[in-house]
Amino acid sequence: MSELRLADIVTALGGELHGEGSLRIAGLAPLETANSSQISFVSNPRYQPQIAGSNAGCIIVVPALREAAIRRGSCIVTDQPYLYFARLTQLWRATLRAARPMTSRALSIHPSAVVDPEASVDPTALVGALCVIERGARIGAGTVLRPRVTVGEDCVVGARCLVHSGVVIGADGFGFAPDGDKWEKIEQLGAVRIGDDVEIGANTCIDRGALQDTVIEDGVKLDNLIQVGHNVRIGRNTAIAGCAGIAGSATIGAQCTIGGGAVVLGHLQIADHVHISAATVVSKSIKKPGQYTGFFPLDDNAAWERNAATVKQLHRLRERIKKLESE
Amino acid sequence: MSELRLADIVTALGGELHGEGSLRIAGLAPLETANSSQISFVSNPRYQPQIAGSNAGCIIVVPALREAAIRRGSCIVTDQPYLYFARLTQLWRATLRAARPMTSRALSIHPSAVVDPEASVDPTALVGALCVIERGARIGAGTVLRPRVTVGEDCVVGARCLVHSGVVIGADGFGFAPDGDKWEKIEQLGAVRIGDDVEIGANTCIDRGALQDTVIEDGVKLDNLIQVGHNVRIGRNTAIAGCAGIAGSATIGAQCTIGGGAVVLGHLQIADHVHISAATVVSKSIKKPGQYTGFFPLDDNAAWERNAATVKQLHRLRERIKKLESE
Amino acid sequence: MSELRLADIVTALGGELHGEGSLRIAGLAPLETANSSQISFVSNPRYQPQIAGSNAGCIIVVPALREAAIRRGSCIVTDQPYLYFARLTQLWRATLRAARPMTSRALSIHPSAVVDPEASVDPTALVGALCVIERGARIGAGTVLRPRVTVGEDCVVGARCLVHSGVVIGADGFGFAPDGDKWEKIEQLGAVRIGDDVEIGANTCIDRGALQDTVIEDGVKLDNLIQVGHNVRIGRNTAIAGCAGIAGSATIGAQCTIGGGAVVLGHLQIADHVHISAATVVSKSIKKPGQYTGFFPLDDNAAWERNAATVKQLHRLRERIKKLESE
Repeated sequence: MSELRLADIVTALGGELHGEGSLRIAGLAPLETANSSQISFVSNPRYQPQIAGSNAGCIIVVPALREAAIRRGSCIVTDQPYLYFARLTQLWRATLRAARPMTSRALSIHPSAVVDPEASVDPTALVGALCVIERGARIGAGTVLRPRVTVGEDCVVGARCLVHSGVVIGADGFGFAPDGDKWEKIEQLGAVRIGDDVEIGANTCIDRGALQDTVIEDGVKLDNLIQVGHNVRIGRNTAIAGCAGIAGSATIGAQCTIGGGAVVLGHLQIADHVHISAATVVSKSIKKPGQYTGFFPLDDNAAWERNAATVKQLHRLRERIKKLESE
Repeated sequence: MSELRLADIVTALGGELHGEGSLRIAGLAPLETANSSQISFVSNPRYQPQIAGSNAGCIIVVPALREAAIRRGSCIVTDQPYLYFARLTQLWRATLRAARPMTSRALSIHPSAVVDPEASVDPTALVGALCVIERGARIGAGTVLRPRVTVGEDCVVGARCLVHSGVVIGADGFGFAPDGDKWEKIEQLGAVRIGDDVEIGANTCIDRGALQDTVIEDGVKLDNLIQVGHNVRIGRNTAIAGCAGIAGSATIGAQCTIGGGAVVLGHLQIADHVHISAATVVSKSIKKPGQYTGFFPLDDNAAWERNAATVKQLHRLRERIKKLESE
Repeated sequence: MSELRLADIVTALGGELHGEGSLRIAGLAPLETANSSQISFVSNPRYQPQIAGSNAGCIIVVPALREAAIRRGSCIVTDQPYLYFARLTQLWRATLRAARPMTSRALSIHPSAVVDPEASVDPTALVGALCVIERGARIGAGTVLRPRVTVGEDCVVGARCLVHSGVVIGADGFGFAPDGDKWEKIEQLGAVRIGDDVEIGANTCIDRGALQDTVIEDGVKLDNLIQVGHNVRIGRNTAIAGCAGIAGSATIGAQCTIGGGAVVLGHLQIADHVHISAATVVSKSIKKPGQYTGFFPLDDNAAWERNAATVKQLHRLRERIKKLESE
């Protein structure tokens, strides 16, 4: 088991340490369950009551909680404990890696990966086992493709991206013209362009554009099993949770969040700083920042059945109310 | 084509046979379409009227249908015909396999699979073509990984599990701390622990935990294209249908069922014996067993448009009713 | 960069050319952004006003727009400009391929694919890198499997199909019989039969049938991340958008469209020429052609909260209206 001393932590990440720098920390844990060799954090001053009762070896806190935390024991004071905690997980990962080095990490491209000779992979990138990189594709510096990722022809992945297992970048967009009863394929002549510092979750799909490229801007974070249709553009630092679907030609602004299972219909535009709740269907463009929601509230099944039946008469109910009012 | 005599079936699976044990059965089929060389079943006494008209070679029935079934022809009487039928499919599969052995079955690990030398695969497990098993991962006795499965670092799959093609176990959970406009990655330091007798459908994803492990208990059945977020715990024998999404840190009880396309939001708790209908959004914890539902009822598009518009005025409608009542 | 002369285009695809056949076209683009070396199209006469202002090198138009288009510059007149455009994308793709031939295209089966000796792959089919084709599976003439596709035991893919990366054909359907607290597996003894001219999007799953086969008829188009359960039948030329889920034993007619994220519950029947909107839940059979919809309309979060709370009292509201009316 790897350990870090509190002094090592503040040397690496900063912050104001109260307590013994020599204390050895063996792990990170939530406030309620942390033991004396674990470190935890509190971001929100309203959790102050829980501090006194925590057994954590050290707690990372905001300045407003300094006194309460010192009364309890070791603490690190910093303006943004959650951000500090995120960086601590990275320090921890690096420590674990150092203690248990990957023998195969010497190789940039796993020998089982199928990389077209006309693809370009930066020497500092890592391409996992059984990935497929087609010709003309480019993988940027420091980017990591986990095992079993497909990057299609001419698609570009920027620098410092992390692409999880099963991702498909650059399958054909879903485009067909009707020809009588049949469908005639519209060849998808664009590609996919992914910026820097993008993370893409397992089994997520990003389709190539029909004429132009599908574009994922810098800093976007996509969770698992997301569908991104052709010609979509997703703005900087937008984060999208699992199972969401972004239909073709939708444009999503920067700094947005989209909840799990949400659906954005095609050709819509969503402004910057829009937050879509989980399982919500965006059926028209959203021009104003804000939080938007739309899902049917859960109920016990019998109550739902009654209310759902009434939903289908809602328009008539309104007419009946109008009539009552006019009487 | 493989065949089984009725006598072979009752020898293997029990039950009370009425009719010729030498009758050869060439397949299983639903009651309405079964022919005289096929076997079928009836669980529910209210299907009794269909029995007389069936051409099936043999029918598996509950004791209450014994007389009706004997009048028609061959039958096997058992307390739980559907369960008997399930076991018969297994017997059938074994018979088919015996008649057509897999030459490659001798090998526990397909030569194209990429298994880290520090991973541990039980000698009785089968690892399909082009699977990736990362270091520290463990695969239990009798477990079958179908082709193209990823089991990430330190993740554990128990005994007698069946994991279908495209599954990703142990991708990173979706965790980021805001840092101004950007997102700082929270390294996912936990793993995934999967119990015994678990089945996981094609392209389903189970993320590793942030600090502790994501846990799937014994006997859980997951369908295809399901997202299970980090730190989730799914209780014993719970079954979840396709396209469902379980957000991070949700805890789902034992013996639950969750319908296709349902979404369970993060950090919620669902009690044992809760049944969630398809396409339902669970947006708060559920403490009482029961059936819960919440989706907008389908209607013809024009009616839906009128009613959906009225939904958005619902609160005001209620105020108008209140006013009318007070007058 | 590849180029086509207008004369080459009408030679290959027909249509009535007005303008210089020697004009070289370097790409396809939408009407608003096309430059003088690009070709565009207008299907709908109501876009006539945009024609005059377009900089496109040539515009494909319906006969009703012939005069307006000729006044502007080069045009090709055809009855179905969108279909013409689709075929032009195919001509374009062929031109690009000819200019940049794939060295590996000589091989029908990529050397990294794992094809069972008892599987049958038509010599004109292409099997991509790291595909798995199990024994008894058959791949038809001219069909293309992109990289990392699984075709399970005994499953059949017809002629001229296109199957994108990550697709899983023939995983087990989700079938279990209750056995006390546990689930007993129902072996899935059927297979999957896919017709001709079918396209299947990335990471989509089509499960094998329990007793009979799951059937996808000719000309069906499936987008990415779709779940098709066991025993489902999808009729000719039906198109289904991304993230949709079709539960087990559902039968969908011919010439239907199903929107993204829609869910069709199990054992239902949908007639021919039915159109289901995105994110709609089909919870009973649909016998009449038409457009059907059912999702909760999006609203700003605060308004949604008020209205959603009222939805749960809807049945009581109706009773109150009734009472007011009777007074």
